[in-house]
Formats: sequence, C-alpha cells, structure tokens
Amino acid sequence: VTAADAAALVDGARAGDRGAIARLLSLVESGGPEADAALSRLFPHTGTTYTVGMTGPPGGGKSTLTDRLVARLRRDGEEVGVLAVDPTSPFTGGAILGDRVRMQGHATDAGVFIRSMASRGHLGGLALATPQAVRVLDAAGKPWVIIETVGVGQVEVEVAGAADTTAVVLNPGWGDAVQANKAGLLEIADVLAVNKADRPGGDETVRDLRNMIEWSGPRDWAPPIVETVATEGRGVDDLWDAIAAHRAHLERDGRLATRRAARLRDEIEALVAERLGRRAGAVCTGARFDELLARVAAHDLDPHAAADALLDPRGQ
Amino acid sequence: VTAADAAALVDGARAGDRGAIARLLSLVESGGPEADAALSRLFPHTGTTYTVGMTGPPGGGKSTLTDRLVARLRRDGEEVGVLAVDPTSPFTGGAILGDRVRMQGHATDAGVFIRSMASRGHLGGLALATPQAVRVLDAAGKPWVIIETVGVGQVEVEVAGAADTTAVVLNPGWGDAVQANKAGLLEIADVLAVNKADRPGGDETVRDLRNMIEWSGPRDWAPPIVETVATEGRGVDDLWDAIAAHRAHLERDGRLATRRAARLRDEIEALVAERLGRRAGAVCTGARFDELLARVAAHDLDPHAAADALLDPRGQ
Repeated sequence: VTAADAAALVDGARAGDRGAIARLLSLVESGGPEADAALSRLFPHTGTTYTVGMTGPPGGGKSTLTDRLVARLRRDGEEVGVLAVDPTSPFTGGAILGDRVRMQGHATDAGVFIRSMASRGHLGGLALATPQAVRVLDAAGKPWVIIETVGVGQVEVEVAGAADTTAVVLNPGWGDAVQANKAGLLEIADVLAVNKADRPGGDETVRDLRNMIEWSGPRDWAPPIVETVATEGRGVDDLWDAIAAHRAHLERDGRLATRRAARLRDEIEALVAERLGRRAGAVCTGARFDELLARVAAHDLDPHAAADALLDPRGQ
Repeated sequence: VTAADAAALVDGARAGDRGAIARLLSLVESGGPEADAALSRLFPHTGTTYTVGMTGPPGGGKSTLTDRLVARLRRDGEEVGVLAVDPTSPFTGGAILGDRVRMQGHATDAGVFIRSMASRGHLGGLALATPQAVRVLDAAGKPWVIIETVGVGQVEVEVAGAADTTAVVLNPGWGDAVQANKAGLLEIADVLAVNKADRPGGDETVRDLRNMIEWSGPRDWAPPIVETVATEGRGVDDLWDAIAAHRAHLERDGRLATRRAARLRDEIEALVAERLGRRAGAVCTGARFDELLARVAAHDLDPHAAADALLDPRGQ
C-alpha cells in the first residue's frame, strides 16, 4: 500500500465503498507504518460514531442480541458496523464460526458492515487495533458501531469496556459461582441485559443484580437491568431504550466528551508504552546481553536483575 | 514483607513449609519490588523442576487428566505442583470453581501443591508471573510442576507453550470447525492427547492429527498421539510415557538446556519490554502532553502521531 493507495482507500471508505472499508480494516489489523499513515488521514473525518460494547459469558446470547439490535437500528434507517473481537488461539475455531453464521442474516444489507477483529499476534494488539477499526467505520459514515466480544478474557472485556455504552449480557443463574467477579462487572456495565430471562431463576438474577447495584452505593448512573429473550426478539426495544437513555445521560453536561477524552488519554499512553516496549529488542542484543543471559542460565543472576542491569544507564 | 521476612519465607519454602510457599506465590502474583527481592533470593535454588503444560479447548477434560497425572506421579512417590492459569475477567467464576473442585482429591496430600494463578491486572502479567511461580515450587523441591490453562486465550496458550513438555488435550470431533488453527496447535504441542477417545469420531480425530503431523514435514520430534478416557483413567499411563519420552528426547544432546536458555532469553526481553512500557506514565504527563491530548480530542492530530511526538527527542 503506497501513500497514494492509502489516500484512495480513505476516499473510497468515506464514500461508503465496502471493498475500501474491508481493505482499511485489514490494514489496521496488521498494523505497521502503512496503517498509521492511513489512520492519520482518516482521523480528521472521525468523531461522530457512537460505540456500543456487548460483552458477557460465552453462550449467553450476545451474538443473537447484537443481531436483534442491528435489525432494530435498520428499522430506524440507521447504518451500523459490527466488530466481533476475537483473540485467536489454536482453540477458538468453533466459536468464531458459530457467531459468524448467526449474523449472516445481514450479510446482503449494504447498511450493515460486519467484521471479525482477530489478534495482531502480540498481547494488547487487539486493544490497540479496535479503536482504529472503529475509526474506519466512523469515517465510512456509520453512526453506530457495536463492538461484540467473542471471548471473555481480559483483553475482550477491556475492549468492550472502552465503548461509549457497554452492555453486559448475563443469563439466569449467573452469579451463583462463588468467585464471580461482581465488582469487576459493575465497573464496566452501563446497561445489564438478563437474556434467556424466561428460563428458571430469571427473577432471582434480576433481583440479585438490583441488590448488587444498590449496595455498591450512590453513583452518577445506575445501570438499568433489562430482561430479554433474544431468540424471540423479546425485550430488544427495552434494551435499545436503555442504551439510548445512557447515551442521553452521557450527552448531558459534557460527560461524553470527558469520557472520550479519558479514553484518548489511555490510548495515547498505551501507544507510548507499546512503542517503548518495542525497544526491548534493541536492548536485548550484543555482548553485554549474552553475558547476562549466560549468568541467568547458570542461575547466578535472576531474570529481573538481568532486565534491570540492561536498563541501568551506568551499565551501558 | 520486609527483606528479613522474604528471607524467612524463602527458607520456609525450601524446607517445604506450605504456608511459606503459599505466601511466596501470593507475593509473585501481586508483583512489585518485594516479589523481585524474594525471587532474587529463590533463583539460585531453582533449575531442577521439570514443567509440563496442559492446554486445549474448554470442556476437553484437562483438569481430570491433570488430576490423573498427579495420581500417577504420586504412585511413583514423586511430589508435584499444579498451577492453574486463569486470567480473571468478570465472567470466569464458574469455570474456576468447577476446576478447583475436581482437584480436591489431592487437597490433603502434602506431596501435592495446587494453586490458581490469576491475572496481575495488566496484559502480559500472567505470562511474566507464571515462570516465577514455577520457581517458587522449584525451590520448594517439587521435581514436577504441571501448568494447566483454564482459559483458551492467547496468554494461556503462550503460558502452556512455555513448559518443557506441552501436552495439548483435544476431543473427538476437534478440527471440524473451518477456522481451527491447526498450524498454531502444532507449534506448541509436544504430545497430543485425544481425551474422551471412546466417543464417536475418536479414530477419525487420531487419523486427522496423524496426517496433519505427517503433512507438516520432517521434524526433530513428531508429537505422539495418545488416546485417553480420563474419567476412567484409561490411557493415562500412555500419556505419561509420551511425556517421559519427550523429556528423554530433550535431555539427549543438550536440547533441554538450549530450549530453556531460549525461554530465559524471551523472558528477559519481556521483562525489559515491561519495564520500558512502565515509563509511559512519566512520558504522558505535563504541559506538552496536555497540549497534544487537546489536539487529539479536537481531531486535529491522531493518537499515533501524538505518541510519536511524545517520544521524539527533538520535541522534548
């Protein structure tokens, strides 16, 4: 991709060309200087998309619910992008396939753009790539982007938590396990959806969540709890209303701008940390490194001490 | 924890005191200068433990198989440590609980030490903490440490792949999904266990894996494929023999030492990268940072360009 190509891709994406959007998303996923150049061109044309994160345990119905929200937005004539965040591992094949198949109903709709975001092969790569992918869809004129997490690892939760509004999708019976991290859940949830709410235990789960929110003390925004049955489309309008209410809350008194500025601050710091970390390769080379490594291999020096010694300016 | 405390803990752990081992593992999990100090004291007493990684898709029976391997080792009079690697997220509660309950059979056996390794709250934290936890058990005199991954994310696979011998546990029917990353699997598997091999499709899965290994071309070590039924204890001795055969292979011609030195090299580089990354906080502060952030928030400068500007020595 040359600079001229990048410019053409950005123009294409802004005009809504699906091929250009897809190629820009691939560029963003692989990263590197060409991706940076394209993003620098895109960035002035972004800032209007509203992002919704959908996260929760596997098998909870996130994809089906996302699919229903997309249908709801399309009924209102709104265009929407969907990013399915999905750190690859040798063992994730089945889940990815299942999720993609479920979204096929929108595959021929030009107003919907669905994309799986796979790992960039290094830790934290996905967390850095996802906001860039949102920007591609933003510049392409999608007023809404839904970020759906496939896995439940730390990275995915972080990514979903970095949306303007984050919906956590649970099921009846959730929270029975002793170690369920309820505090961590409340930190990221702006809206709580109890999906499959017609199953036994639905009412108790709603009550538990309500208590949990009350006990956590007064807050700026108490996450509404919505009961849904995604497979039948039940509660989808309520969920949408809850998301819209949270958006309205953020847009009052400049909270949305403050939240986005805080995210940008975090993003810049993460980018700086990534760039600094990349310098490790240059530090870990040469005669001095070989000497320290030999001492570590001989158990004469521990790895932390070796790392400190390599970074000690007096040792250079 | 003072320096004197750390010394006492290390002495206690070396003498096999379970309380001291547990406290050192907690220290390692939380990280920081005290953990570094304790590890520096531990490190000269390590290097004898042999590590076995157990990884694979969820529900495949890794915990039950690990439990059986522990029993097998105990029959031979060998002591063993088990680290269950488990990046926390708000949604992992159930899985952790189930796994721990299954291992309770060894809870009262003084020759077995079982520990869940949870996240250290930052990406890559677990990958850095796990080798340190192995060192605690190593110094405590456990000749074997089994590293079992609970999740299937990139971090867990990386952690399990960093063992001396990595066993990948699959089930009949694995690999039917189109996207299953077979190349990634072969990169980490030293031994392949097809667990629940009595289920339909077991023979086909074994044949598929055998073909996959043959097609991947000649290699130093072709991972043996073992059929197991962990719940009935079937095939556990074969699995153990395969692990022992891989160990014998590595111990011939100094391959184990080479592999461990390569891991130490990677570990030191990761520690250097982490230390360099931590400097981002200091870079992302002050008037210049605020000015750049304001420009980014106004969409006048993109986040990558801001990060580059912050790291440009001419801009300081």
